[in-house]
Amino acid sequence: MTPYEIIRRKRDNETLSRKEIFYFVDEFMRGRIKDYQMSAFLMAVFYQGLNDEETLLLTEAYLRSGKTINLDHLAARKIDKHSTGGVGDKVSIILAPLAASLGVLVPMISGRGLGHTGGTLDKLESIPGFKVTGSIQRFKKQMKEIGVAMYGQSEFLVPADRKIYALRDVTATVDSIPLITASIMSKKLAAGIDGLVLDVKVGNGSFIPRMTRAEQLARNLIRIGQAFGKKVTTYLTSMDQPLGNKIGNWLEIEECLDCLKGEGPKDLVELTVELTTEMMILADLEKKRSVAKKKCFQALNDGSALKKFLELVKFQGGNIELLLHPERVGTASYSKKLTAAKDGFISQIDTYRLGVGSVHLGAGRFHAGSKVDPQAGLILYKKIGDPVKKGEVILELRSNKQAALEEAEIQLDHFCKIQPTGVRTPELVRKRLSQI
Amino acid sequence: MTPYEIIRRKRDNETLSRKEIFYFVDEFMRGRIKDYQMSAFLMAVFYQGLNDEETLLLTEAYLRSGKTINLDHLAARKIDKHSTGGVGDKVSIILAPLAASLGVLVPMISGRGLGHTGGTLDKLESIPGFKVTGSIQRFKKQMKEIGVAMYGQSEFLVPADRKIYALRDVTATVDSIPLITASIMSKKLAAGIDGLVLDVKVGNGSFIPRMTRAEQLARNLIRIGQAFGKKVTTYLTSMDQPLGNKIGNWLEIEECLDCLKGEGPKDLVELTVELTTEMMILADLEKKRSVAKKKCFQALNDGSALKKFLELVKFQGGNIELLLHPERVGTASYSKKLTAAKDGFISQIDTYRLGVGSVHLGAGRFHAGSKVDPQAGLILYKKIGDPVKKGEVILELRSNKQAALEEAEIQLDHFCKIQPTGVRTPELVRKRLSQI
Repeated sequence: MTPYEIIRRKRDNETLSRKEIFYFVDEFMRGRIKDYQMSAFLMAVFYQGLNDEETLLLTEAYLRSGKTINLDHLAARKIDKHSTGGVGDKVSIILAPLAASLGVLVPMISGRGLGHTGGTLDKLESIPGFKVTGSIQRFKKQMKEIGVAMYGQSEFLVPADRKIYALRDVTATVDSIPLITASIMSKKLAAGIDGLVLDVKVGNGSFIPRMTRAEQLARNLIRIGQAFGKKVTTYLTSMDQPLGNKIGNWLEIEECLDCLKGEGPKDLVELTVELTTEMMILADLEKKRSVAKKKCFQALNDGSALKKFLELVKFQGGNIELLLHPERVGTASYSKKLTAAKDGFISQIDTYRLGVGSVHLGAGRFHAGSKVDPQAGLILYKKIGDPVKKGEVILELRSNKQAALEEAEIQLDHFCKIQPTGVRTPELVRKRLSQI
Repeated sequence: MTPYEIIRRKRDNETLSRKEIFYFVDEFMRGRIKDYQMSAFLMAVFYQGLNDEETLLLTEAYLRSGKTINLDHLAARKIDKHSTGGVGDKVSIILAPLAASLGVLVPMISGRGLGHTGGTLDKLESIPGFKVTGSIQRFKKQMKEIGVAMYGQSEFLVPADRKIYALRDVTATVDSIPLITASIMSKKLAAGIDGLVLDVKVGNGSFIPRMTRAEQLARNLIRIGQAFGKKVTTYLTSMDQPLGNKIGNWLEIEECLDCLKGEGPKDLVELTVELTTEMMILADLEKKRSVAKKKCFQALNDGSALKKFLELVKFQGGNIELLLHPERVGTASYSKKLTAAKDGFISQIDTYRLGVGSVHLGAGRFHAGSKVDPQAGLILYKKIGDPVKKGEVILELRSNKQAALEEAEIQLDHFCKIQPTGVRTPELVRKRLSQI
């Protein structure tokens, strides 16, 4: 068994054994298999794939590389939620405290924004003082005291995934279903979950535009979760337009606060409630979907979800005063409003372009490690199906860099299509897949 | 244009531009594109290939990375020969002085043995004192004075190929026709040739066992050579049994001396003369194949090829006395003879196994940088088609390590098949392809 022979076997579409996969990951972590061998291996996996057994073994190898958090001493079910990433997707920030306020334990490990999509951690960090790192002890204490935690992937949790993801990111090997599956599932499993709700985004603002491929990923995630004895439900949801109306870190926190006060935009609230309902079902807190749903709306309307969010922010060091008075944060120095060129109905939105535009304004990063501007971003005044009049404002750009604003204005000039007749609002939840 | 985007484009089977290929190789040589990005790129090339234009550009990029030798001031044509590697393939060592003795200028850049095949440089170095490195000035001086030089790839010639080959060797990306083509052609072109005779080995002892794939490589080499304005002829020749009877460094030098005295084994002499004839044709020294062939035999029989070989060895520091009295070198400490288990005719030889066996005995290397034992090797007493009697010696093993000898004995126990009826000797030259 040599590194060369393992690469060659995968290259020629042979099936790797447990011993080979563990050896390859373990030796890579010890520095005895080099980056250039791992990246050749990853490219071979990109072409040849991994079967279920191999994907499971890779996930296990990732898990073995670090510590895992044991939450077995907490009586209630631990359920997490994960999204494959989209534009304006701020669901986690509303869902985690909402589910926790209803009795679900939510040990959430989130990611940062990269490419055209934002990341939950960047959004949370736009709350001054908010910390997304801490010891495993601190994480467990928080879970015990308030039932919800939102952390980034520490160096102790699945270091193999961190190291391998960094390589994938610079060698064009991110877009591989088995590699995505092992990366997601290992992180979630390391946080000690009993169940998981997955939101696989489909459409022009997602990483996986085609429905068939998104379904492949969904089924793969379910199979691997099941193999670890976890309950997994996967939703395929539309990313053919942004979720809600705001894109950008602090802008999205504002919109989350609206939702937590029962005043959020319809699509964002609908999806958050749907996914939280599923978490309650997986946690065995409710059997009836309709009852669970009603409880979600109630918790959003009566302030209990907001209360839990404030507890969460306080526990992780964030400034609560600013959440109670968000207007004190102030807005970006420069802004620009784009208007409709004609009367009609919004029929299409180039979601990817909006995502890239928001990154240019400062809201995201094209390179790991870049800083983000909490105030930069976009406000979308119209969504697909909405009627517009010529000259009416449809998009607002905000940035602290004037040059970036001017560039983004040009890029975003034709971000949507307007047609003379009405169009149907696209279905938000396109499919729900559960235990196979 | 970013390294990532170039990898992704090749991954998705898009065609790369001159700018992209030059950028990728140049930046790699400058250390700004990392090994792990190059290896991911190479694996993508393994799967997607390169078209003719891309292969040409890669060859150019390799060439640009180092110096080239200009031999334009020498009036005669400069013709080199290259083999893709086989077991017992010692043709270059006879052919180079033979061609030079007939007026062809032979600026030869050779390689070392790796895996189951030996290398010309290792064989030459088994002549005490023989040096395969030197300055470009020294190389040019030697070409001017004696018309033939046999050097290794110095650090000045095509360093990009050296660096990339080292990576390919440990990432299972050697076996790619466009990468093999660029690697061979860049080295040959850097040595200032006008024409090239290529010997692509096919069969169970070659790197490319299948005829169709060998033909693809042959055509690819011809097209790239032509694109650089060079005359290229490619032979597809059988490697279903070793060439000649001896395998191992000094053993092969002994067999070359036999050939240079007109006493070599039939197959080895036949192929050497065929390829040298083609060199004379490409060099415009002869028009008629039959005349050229006759001159080759004459130069082998009248001692003029041997004389040129001695000049070559002397110029490169080798001990001529030992070539005149090869018996003084002595044999390896341990030897073992294998005998036929029954009467019949040799019908098949596992050439790959013989190659691997000779490496185990000490004649080659499994890892770049390992040392080789000049005296270790194999002597094959029978070849395909030969009649044998039960108990007759068919193979002799030689080594300076007793344990290695015992291991190799077990490995080589069934290296050939004996059948009761006669078989036809396989065709040595299977195809000849020239300008397309």
